[in-house]
Amino acid sequence: MSALPPGSTIGILGGGQLGRMLAIAASRLGFQVHIYSDTSGPAFDVAAGHTVGDYNDTGAIAAWAEKVDVVTYEFENVPLTAAAAAAAIKPVRPNARALEAAQDRLTEKRFIADLGLAVAPFAPVDDYESLETALNEIGTPAILKTRRLGYDGKGQARLTTDDDAKSALDTIAHAPAILEGYVEFECEISILLARAVDGSTACYDIPLNTHVNGILATSTIPGPLPDPMTEKAIDAASRVASALDYVGLITVEMFYAGENSDQPLIVNEFAPRVHNSGHWTLDACAVCQFENHIRAVAGWPIAATTRHSDAVMTNLIGADVNDWPTLAGEPNACLHLYGKNEARAGRKMGHITRLAPIAS
Amino acid sequence: MSALPPGSTIGILGGGQLGRMLAIAASRLGFQVHIYSDTSGPAFDVAAGHTVGDYNDTGAIAAWAEKVDVVTYEFENVPLTAAAAAAAIKPVRPNARALEAAQDRLTEKRFIADLGLAVAPFAPVDDYESLETALNEIGTPAILKTRRLGYDGKGQARLTTDDDAKSALDTIAHAPAILEGYVEFECEISILLARAVDGSTACYDIPLNTHVNGILATSTIPGPLPDPMTEKAIDAASRVASALDYVGLITVEMFYAGENSDQPLIVNEFAPRVHNSGHWTLDACAVCQFENHIRAVAGWPIAATTRHSDAVMTNLIGADVNDWPTLAGEPNACLHLYGKNEARAGRKMGHITRLAPIAS
Repeated sequence: MSALPPGSTIGILGGGQLGRMLAIAASRLGFQVHIYSDTSGPAFDVAAGHTVGDYNDTGAIAAWAEKVDVVTYEFENVPLTAAAAAAAIKPVRPNARALEAAQDRLTEKRFIADLGLAVAPFAPVDDYESLETALNEIGTPAILKTRRLGYDGKGQARLTTDDDAKSALDTIAHAPAILEGYVEFECEISILLARAVDGSTACYDIPLNTHVNGILATSTIPGPLPDPMTEKAIDAASRVASALDYVGLITVEMFYAGENSDQPLIVNEFAPRVHNSGHWTLDACAVCQFENHIRAVAGWPIAATTRHSDAVMTNLIGADVNDWPTLAGEPNACLHLYGKNEARAGRKMGHITRLAPIAS
Repeated sequence: MSALPPGSTIGILGGGQLGRMLAIAASRLGFQVHIYSDTSGPAFDVAAGHTVGDYNDTGAIAAWAEKVDVVTYEFENVPLTAAAAAAAIKPVRPNARALEAAQDRLTEKRFIADLGLAVAPFAPVDDYESLETALNEIGTPAILKTRRLGYDGKGQARLTTDDDAKSALDTIAHAPAILEGYVEFECEISILLARAVDGSTACYDIPLNTHVNGILATSTIPGPLPDPMTEKAIDAASRVASALDYVGLITVEMFYAGENSDQPLIVNEFAPRVHNSGHWTLDACAVCQFENHIRAVAGWPIAATTRHSDAVMTNLIGADVNDWPTLAGEPNACLHLYGKNEARAGRKMGHITRLAPIAS
């Protein structure tokens, strides 16, 4: 498939805020957007078409794929059967391999480790016995994570001593899991890399990310990496993307342990999609992560990731959004609200990006 | 009415590219958008709701106004009866007075002149006799313009000598008109001023505009005005907005005749809406003209109009849009395509804004 001309239809699986911002980016390039989601969501309000259906209804997925020219997604837990049903009809980008690797923490860790990249020590856990074996190998403190469907700190349990084993298994409801050893690090960063159909790539400047209660709180750009580390980090992300024959925007989250560490960069996980830690690109770059994802998916060239401003992106979680009257009055701040009705605790309701001239 | 909370619905009369970019800006602030247009258009693809109806169908307009929280428009030729029908139900911003003044070149010129602002010499023309009187007063070269419904150079005829009078009247189909004298000027500029419900204002930096065949071709920022002239220009636009008790983004087009001219700034016309010459604000400012219009209309504070980049906006007219594969490969360029199917000659299909760091 060559580049899709403007007027073509981009199909997006998922109707949340990432789908919403993807839809806006796609429309800016003259594309139509058709969302498929299991529930009405923020993306519906800015898309030309939307279909509500179960993600496991492969018939409905296939019928929807007939109406679009290419399929992408805003979340990594798209069932592989849905991706396969769509791929039988139209190109799915990123491909199912990226989805498969991202959906299972064990597969993901092994995949990353096999690329020769540093990861935290890990071992599979299926039951109490394998947890004991894992604890013997990795020690405490450690963290038990379900292999599937964990996000924003959910599906996790911390173990301070071996005595926490049983309660940790209870916390994650005895789901298949991995035990991860703690690694010492200075801070968390994320690499936002766009890769085109022809394999060419472009990487955004690398932000510093902070989390509160397991949820991203802020992304600050420029981040902490000195130049040689930036090169290493981009190289690592490129290897992940290349090994997956990835098309689109991929996010690789890393721990940074400092220049003098034996393992300065430790890959935590990757997301086969645009990412909350890249929202600042909407306002601080000529072309944002959402547009570059759409460009890649549509077979267009990746646009330069040039940044014109320094930025701090702050998530508005739950009741934070009630501060909108104050936030709306801030100069040099770009307010983004996702149009969600109910400001539940822990729910991402919007974000604000505060811009400043690039510090020289 | 105090500030509309996110989740409220903005009603927009008109479904073209300006409505489209207004809808995107509104959604970014968490608003729903409902478009009313006499035909399906580019704005429909990015709005939660849309109604197709005649602009003269005041019943349909009123029924639509019931569904929204505030009404605005993307074009100045909204029938006053439609504005009145909507205003009986919900606030209409900008108000009908702005529409009325903008719809008739004679009313507009008189209104501007009455504010003590310089305009080109003008006289009303209803028939051959009044054209002769006008020509005696103003002389040639001059330009005959219909009082109503002219845009992008349509409804106009140039007169080089008095002998052109009859053919000029034929060209404009003997519609009620004004004769305007030529004024000497160096260049054309536009003032993009946002005014809030409380009367506070903010003005974008003033671009230089070029036209080809009567249609805007480029807007370049920074423009040519030295500081004292910038102050004068902003003051003129503020007086226009203030006299209209204007709420929203107003565009005042001016001729600039140079610092040493007796009349350095001559007001050409104003548009009670966001404007093509402000499209660069999408990519060169933290907050664009579209968002500031929506903010004003929603009773929010105007955001700072700070600019982070220099910019040249170039319209893609008709077949220009066929260059999209080349344009998509340009670095530091923001491509905007409006999703129109047919690239007819003279039709605005999109624009591209080329960014550069602010020259120091």
